[in-house]
Amino acid sequence: MAEFKKIKRSENYSAWYNNLVEQADLAQHSAVKGCMVIKPYGYAIWEKMQADLDRRFKETGHQNAYFPLFVPKSLFEAEEKNAEGFAKECAIVTHYRLKTDPDRPGKLMVDPEAKLEEELIVRPTSEAIIWNTYRDWIQSYRDLPILINQWANVVRWEMRTRLFLRTAEFLWQEGHTAHATKEEALAETKQMLEVYADFAENVMAVPVIKGIKTENERFAGADETFCIEGLMQDGKALQMGTSHFLGQNFAKAFDVKFVSKENVKDYVWATSWGVSTRLMGALIMCHSDDEGLVLPPRLAPIQVVIVPITGKKEEEKALVLDKAREYYTALKAKGILVKLDDRDGISPGYKFADYELKGVPLRIAIGARDVAVGNVELARRDTKTKVVISAENLPETISNLLNEIQENIYNKALEYRDSHIHVVNTWDEFKDALDYKTGFVSAHWDGTSETEEKIKELSKATIRCVPLNNQQEEGVCVLTGNPSTQRVLFAKAY
Amino acid sequence: MAEFKKIKRSENYSAWYNNLVEQADLAQHSAVKGCMVIKPYGYAIWEKMQADLDRRFKETGHQNAYFPLFVPKSLFEAEEKNAEGFAKECAIVTHYRLKTDPDRPGKLMVDPEAKLEEELIVRPTSEAIIWNTYRDWIQSYRDLPILINQWANVVRWEMRTRLFLRTAEFLWQEGHTAHATKEEALAETKQMLEVYADFAENVMAVPVIKGIKTENERFAGADETFCIEGLMQDGKALQMGTSHFLGQNFAKAFDVKFVSKENVKDYVWATSWGVSTRLMGALIMCHSDDEGLVLPPRLAPIQVVIVPITGKKEEEKALVLDKAREYYTALKAKGILVKLDDRDGISPGYKFADYELKGVPLRIAIGARDVAVGNVELARRDTKTKVVISAENLPETISNLLNEIQENIYNKALEYRDSHIHVVNTWDEFKDALDYKTGFVSAHWDGTSETEEKIKELSKATIRCVPLNNQQEEGVCVLTGNPSTQRVLFAKAY
Repeated sequence: MAEFKKIKRSENYSAWYNNLVEQADLAQHSAVKGCMVIKPYGYAIWEKMQADLDRRFKETGHQNAYFPLFVPKSLFEAEEKNAEGFAKECAIVTHYRLKTDPDRPGKLMVDPEAKLEEELIVRPTSEAIIWNTYRDWIQSYRDLPILINQWANVVRWEMRTRLFLRTAEFLWQEGHTAHATKEEALAETKQMLEVYADFAENVMAVPVIKGIKTENERFAGADETFCIEGLMQDGKALQMGTSHFLGQNFAKAFDVKFVSKENVKDYVWATSWGVSTRLMGALIMCHSDDEGLVLPPRLAPIQVVIVPITGKKEEEKALVLDKAREYYTALKAKGILVKLDDRDGISPGYKFADYELKGVPLRIAIGARDVAVGNVELARRDTKTKVVISAENLPETISNLLNEIQENIYNKALEYRDSHIHVVNTWDEFKDALDYKTGFVSAHWDGTSETEEKIKELSKATIRCVPLNNQQEEGVCVLTGNPSTQRVLFAKAY
Repeated sequence: MAEFKKIKRSENYSAWYNNLVEQADLAQHSAVKGCMVIKPYGYAIWEKMQADLDRRFKETGHQNAYFPLFVPKSLFEAEEKNAEGFAKECAIVTHYRLKTDPDRPGKLMVDPEAKLEEELIVRPTSEAIIWNTYRDWIQSYRDLPILINQWANVVRWEMRTRLFLRTAEFLWQEGHTAHATKEEALAETKQMLEVYADFAENVMAVPVIKGIKTENERFAGADETFCIEGLMQDGKALQMGTSHFLGQNFAKAFDVKFVSKENVKDYVWATSWGVSTRLMGALIMCHSDDEGLVLPPRLAPIQVVIVPITGKKEEEKALVLDKAREYYTALKAKGILVKLDDRDGISPGYKFADYELKGVPLRIAIGARDVAVGNVELARRDTKTKVVISAENLPETISNLLNEIQENIYNKALEYRDSHIHVVNTWDEFKDALDYKTGFVSAHWDGTSETEEKIKELSKATIRCVPLNNQQEEGVCVLTGNPSTQRVLFAKAY
């Protein structure tokens, strides 16, 4: 058994992240530039996210469907802003056949005779193909709303990639809805933002700030982009989900009209909203420590691991294993995701380190002495505390502890986040907060894209959002001194 | 409300199928040649298939993971037979950027400067990319077996496509396992065939024949391909799933070796197995009738629909609706997938036809008279029988009926299948069975690829499989008269 390689966050946060993702068996780079392999343990966490989100989507009236991977170029370019926004990072299919290479026996080459008449774009997002389809589905107000979600892979050609955070191919869900009125579409946009925020906080245990993007940071083709922003342990922000109010832009680009109750023909109103495997990056960076992953119980594929500490005496060993199995069965019956690791030939110490690395919230160790007195040793991953407790009512104890851990992880992240929102009034304070205190900086801004870009250039910070229900107060822009009516949140971001 | 368009199976089976898929809101063609849109109702059925299969995969020890959509050409061509088998139907990504077209304002063109150094193949299947990854994962027998499944989209460029049955992009799962011994890999191949067969028969209610493909029909790169074959109502066979024993072919192509317990270095043994959205085609074609879809209860997104028959009197209407809601709640509490259709302004007759078209297994209608005496009218989709029964113990009655329907649908398909296996001994009998009786033809074959191809040419029938545990008997080939030791199953196929 090889030792686990460890890197401290304080040494190099970025190297710590990359190392953790690989060591904890979450994901790895692939032979395809910029594309990742999501390993079984990482995928199991993603599956838990998917299941929870999918339930929430269905509870809010959405249905799943599936649209093609490819977008013909003529459709792709129909909504010009959207097309422009994604044109520079598109994988493009131009041919549909390989043939044997006459010059290299056993090798293949692209068959020049199998060139497509029209190139196909591998979807970077599906508005174009979906709105082209919705045109057939919508005639009257009776056909509305359409509330559809899709779980899919998308491709955005990225030059500088990082596992989960920025990859050429990633997995996501994209909701695409169609409505009869602007109000309904806006309400849907906000509803889905709430769904995301609630999921982030109550399932991922990541506190988020809900807000609106500035025009600069808006989704290409949207009238308004709502977002949730989390804060990572290095003080950088991470956009965790977006919900877009698309106005009538796509309806106009794809000529999707409906006849209203009042018998008036009008363009349909649209929203789209998505979260991706990027959430895995947020989850890892928000909670984990120098020993490895820290998982909130609600997303842990294994919530409790039982490690029997068996000596060399066969009789003792049998006793310990029997007890371990008894606990395993009892915990499983209560619906707890429990694993019994009774592998021979691997030391308890190695197992402990492995489950620590993998972020298993609770570890139960039992040896012969514990069995004799009816105790177990309980170790918490989040606080790294160990206690020996009576095994009476073990399932209930564990179940309560898992809730406590979920809450504690959230509170810890919340405390960190809240202590990293710096209210500043001058450019010096702004730079100081950003560079030394790290985190969000709440500052007045004069509302122009020009200033926003200048600040980005000077500080590497972007406006993460204008928080929802933002307090209105008079002030002056931190850079230009021009008048401002509200503070916005800046941060360096992933 | 438009009338549903109907086509009879006896008129034109193929047109009946296409019409049904569209009318029942299962899928439709898209703007991308050969690619389909899976509509919400169709996708809901697919989701139920996925959930059941996924549970079975996990119960047999498999974990899900995710590998890249793209395969670099150099990896794609590494296993030569596999590459050759798929080369002619590959979508190929050659560029990674679009730019504005100087000659067409607002339009885009492929940026010739963004040509990839190495072309990327959109995966038609993932053996290459996965075995290239397994090389990093496997050093010793301790790393084996690897039991991984992936839910993904794949692309095989097809010129003649049909919704669900043959599309350029389709959804599937692909299992890819690695083993220390040939025996273990073979056992895995057979185990997964059993998983598929059990799913087909007990969930889809489609009886299948388990068998082995001839060399001609084998998966490109496999040593042996096992399959399950179903029979559709037009007498044509449909391959519903395959499980491949890949030998050491991919381990050799990608240099994946392990050190055995005996400290010997050897190539790893492999399997792969998959089913796809093609199963939707099998489901539709096996059970449905001239009125529309017939769904087995275990895959029906709606198992029971309640249609209240309300008159014009407000008082009566309220009574009927109250009762309908009461039944709805009681059925839901029992875990039955029930829908209450209390939409105003749509006639019961229209609703009846709609749910018939959509294959809902049971329909409950209640009017004021029924409420008065505590009855409901129950209509079965499979037998088209109607009965009026007492609503006492309704949840239990319905639950039992759903089981009965599941069984009846299977038995009906089984009876059809069994009466369409024709044992023939001469070429005339062979042709006659194939053209007039339709279905499977059980005939002696001399075992050569040459004869197999000749038969295909003359009759359009292929060898669907050599059934597992096939009876050995002496005979002469139906075409050549050469000696044969067993009968094999021929059929025209999808």
